[in-house]
Amino acid sequence: MSIQSLEVPSREAAHPGWQRPMTLSEQILSRAAGRPVAPGDMVVVAPDLVMGHDSLSPSIIRVMRDQLGVDRVFDKDKIAIVLDHVSPASTVGTANNQNKVRAFAREQDIRLFDVGRGICHQVLVEERLARPGMLIFGSDSHSCSYGAVGAFGSGMGTTDIALIWATGKTWVKVPPTLRVQVRGRFRPGVSAKDLALRVCRDLTIAGATYAAIEYHGLDWLPLEGRQTLASMAVEVGAKAGIVPPTGVVAEQLLPPAWLQVQEDAVYEQELVIDLAELEPQVARPNQVDDVCDLSEVAGTDVSVVFLGTCTNGRYEDMRAAARILSGRRIHPNVRLMITPASNLEMQRAMRDDTLSILIDAGATLTTPGCGMCMGRHQGTLGDGDVCLSTGNRNFRGRMGAPSSRIYLASPEVAAATAISGRIAGPEEV
Amino acid sequence: MSIQSLEVPSREAAHPGWQRPMTLSEQILSRAAGRPVAPGDMVVVAPDLVMGHDSLSPSIIRVMRDQLGVDRVFDKDKIAIVLDHVSPASTVGTANNQNKVRAFAREQDIRLFDVGRGICHQVLVEERLARPGMLIFGSDSHSCSYGAVGAFGSGMGTTDIALIWATGKTWVKVPPTLRVQVRGRFRPGVSAKDLALRVCRDLTIAGATYAAIEYHGLDWLPLEGRQTLASMAVEVGAKAGIVPPTGVVAEQLLPPAWLQVQEDAVYEQELVIDLAELEPQVARPNQVDDVCDLSEVAGTDVSVVFLGTCTNGRYEDMRAAARILSGRRIHPNVRLMITPASNLEMQRAMRDDTLSILIDAGATLTTPGCGMCMGRHQGTLGDGDVCLSTGNRNFRGRMGAPSSRIYLASPEVAAATAISGRIAGPEEV
Repeated sequence: MSIQSLEVPSREAAHPGWQRPMTLSEQILSRAAGRPVAPGDMVVVAPDLVMGHDSLSPSIIRVMRDQLGVDRVFDKDKIAIVLDHVSPASTVGTANNQNKVRAFAREQDIRLFDVGRGICHQVLVEERLARPGMLIFGSDSHSCSYGAVGAFGSGMGTTDIALIWATGKTWVKVPPTLRVQVRGRFRPGVSAKDLALRVCRDLTIAGATYAAIEYHGLDWLPLEGRQTLASMAVEVGAKAGIVPPTGVVAEQLLPPAWLQVQEDAVYEQELVIDLAELEPQVARPNQVDDVCDLSEVAGTDVSVVFLGTCTNGRYEDMRAAARILSGRRIHPNVRLMITPASNLEMQRAMRDDTLSILIDAGATLTTPGCGMCMGRHQGTLGDGDVCLSTGNRNFRGRMGAPSSRIYLASPEVAAATAISGRIAGPEEV
Repeated sequence: MSIQSLEVPSREAAHPGWQRPMTLSEQILSRAAGRPVAPGDMVVVAPDLVMGHDSLSPSIIRVMRDQLGVDRVFDKDKIAIVLDHVSPASTVGTANNQNKVRAFAREQDIRLFDVGRGICHQVLVEERLARPGMLIFGSDSHSCSYGAVGAFGSGMGTTDIALIWATGKTWVKVPPTLRVQVRGRFRPGVSAKDLALRVCRDLTIAGATYAAIEYHGLDWLPLEGRQTLASMAVEVGAKAGIVPPTGVVAEQLLPPAWLQVQEDAVYEQELVIDLAELEPQVARPNQVDDVCDLSEVAGTDVSVVFLGTCTNGRYEDMRAAARILSGRRIHPNVRLMITPASNLEMQRAMRDDTLSILIDAGATLTTPGCGMCMGRHQGTLGDGDVCLSTGNRNFRGRMGAPSSRIYLASPEVAAATAISGRIAGPEEV
């Protein structure tokens, strides 16, 4: 096949030029395409970073070599591989696949973050590989998480990632932008996860299909909360979900001068959420957008509580749970599984008493990474298990047995639920 | 079936009475049988503690109920269940089995130590359930570990454990005792694991078949070192391996007055080991008794180093590794897997800088428990992997792919090997 054949003719007629006000994702895609873009444009872009994880990297390597016939990646410095999904390996097959990826990374001199380093989306932010204004594609569907630092992040499958590793380019249809305007501040016991779930509730699972979401009114929100929020953009079908890199993120990550919120940019739709009225939210089995106020499901028996994932596995999440669990014990019928999002986040929780509080309360610590989120190890759910998870998906069978049930909620609700053995809010325990 | 039919006629003629000098295992079995015993006697005994772990407890429960027709265990206070082998669960089948065990423990009011609490042999010692002079049977083959506290500990299969849970009794042939007489103290860089491996080297894998080992000359050895030593008694075929409860163990665990080393007790055989001459030992693939001095295998490339197991997963083991790894990084071609033997041991290593040093050096932490020792999760070896493990078994395929290879050594050698990427001693790095 010819790589060049992928070039899509530009539609210059559609563009009034670089001066036209643009949303953040339009600005990022314009830069990556080398010309001004507008929603609906099919453009060839040069990504700044392309991430592969353990689930797909073995097949990405195979496609690049065997189907595309390319031996070397386009730019080793623009690729990172993270072993996080079934990590450490739980079968010989997984181990063999990971060994193949290790050998490839060594041969190509690609940065590899091996088992236990953490979840790809956390590690790439910690390592400052994901930065504001970047166009980032990843083989994991939650690659929208990079929107937390003001990057355009999106997930792709094996063949598309292989094509980028081979050529440094891919094509993308420029998405329209959907504006989520947030007002006010969280009430006590309410946090970024409740906002993320509220977005799912209001937009529904397909409500932002192939849109880019831009979250406004959150200049005060720390990076961790932005990661929680951005990670769930894909759950409403969005191609990307970007928080403008303002506040502490601007201070820490120094966004490029060209990346600016332009108030007269065109948004396809606007959703307004008032945090003053936001209560703790819970997604019911088996759909992420089947979200209700906590009070509607309070009292439901659970057997497992899971604190972790790219959505809620950071130090601040563990700290929020530890504040509630301090000096308490979890309910005897409940397992509380803690999977830090990275070893750096785990070490932060080791340095003060956060992790000790959680373990003293009866929690089980696992290797930093994706943990039990996709049901393949470290706490796979059995038949009849009911799990309250801080993760991002509750599809039937995702975490194990098809008959198990998954509720999604915040770390605060997770901690209170672990104590009471039933879904509960912090003020109830 | 009739439980009573298991009563074996006593052989009173063989016994000169309670005054006859006895080895420690003879003393313990006499007490458990209610009469003096001698080697070769077949006696019915009443164990003080019976442990079930996740691998066999589901079938133990099934045999007790369905084959023996017994609904309640003989004494809930003499039973403990620990979920440690594939813990947390890595498949739906494992999860379902563990849920059955949880339901059983709840129904029978049996102490259950759930996923992440630690390895059975460590947990029962920490919880003071295993104490000097006790007769303890467990469903795990390394139940000889309880010899570290001066108990007679031994492993049994499903049917035998089910029979004890049902009746409180079992039968045992009284083993002859083999005396290991240790002289001197460890040289720097040499530790209890080297002694345990030296015993395997000298006795060979079947050299103590159905004997009880008694280790003498170790009054100065801390509990941790005794656990390392006793855990490997089964690797030379021994029914039990007992360290007299002297020194710190006597101070901490207050042995019963009747349990005394009697110098004129009869030992079937004596092995003398002089620690002043003991070098670091390494067991080569694929037999535990294929042991050599470190120098013979130094320089062998490894891909994985595993610090953990009931043999070497305690704080002191992690500390020994941290002393060597402090301020260093592991070799880029090596994964260093750390699995604490229990969450208490992990928390000790979190309270000072032990665990931080190991993680900073590049180690991967896993949930406390058996970890990758039996190849079923948390770091299963792939084809061609070469692992240096602090564990107790290196049989072909034990930790994963049949083509993987396992060397056994001490935490000190493990740390040095992780740094150099090749089997090495602490003085070489």
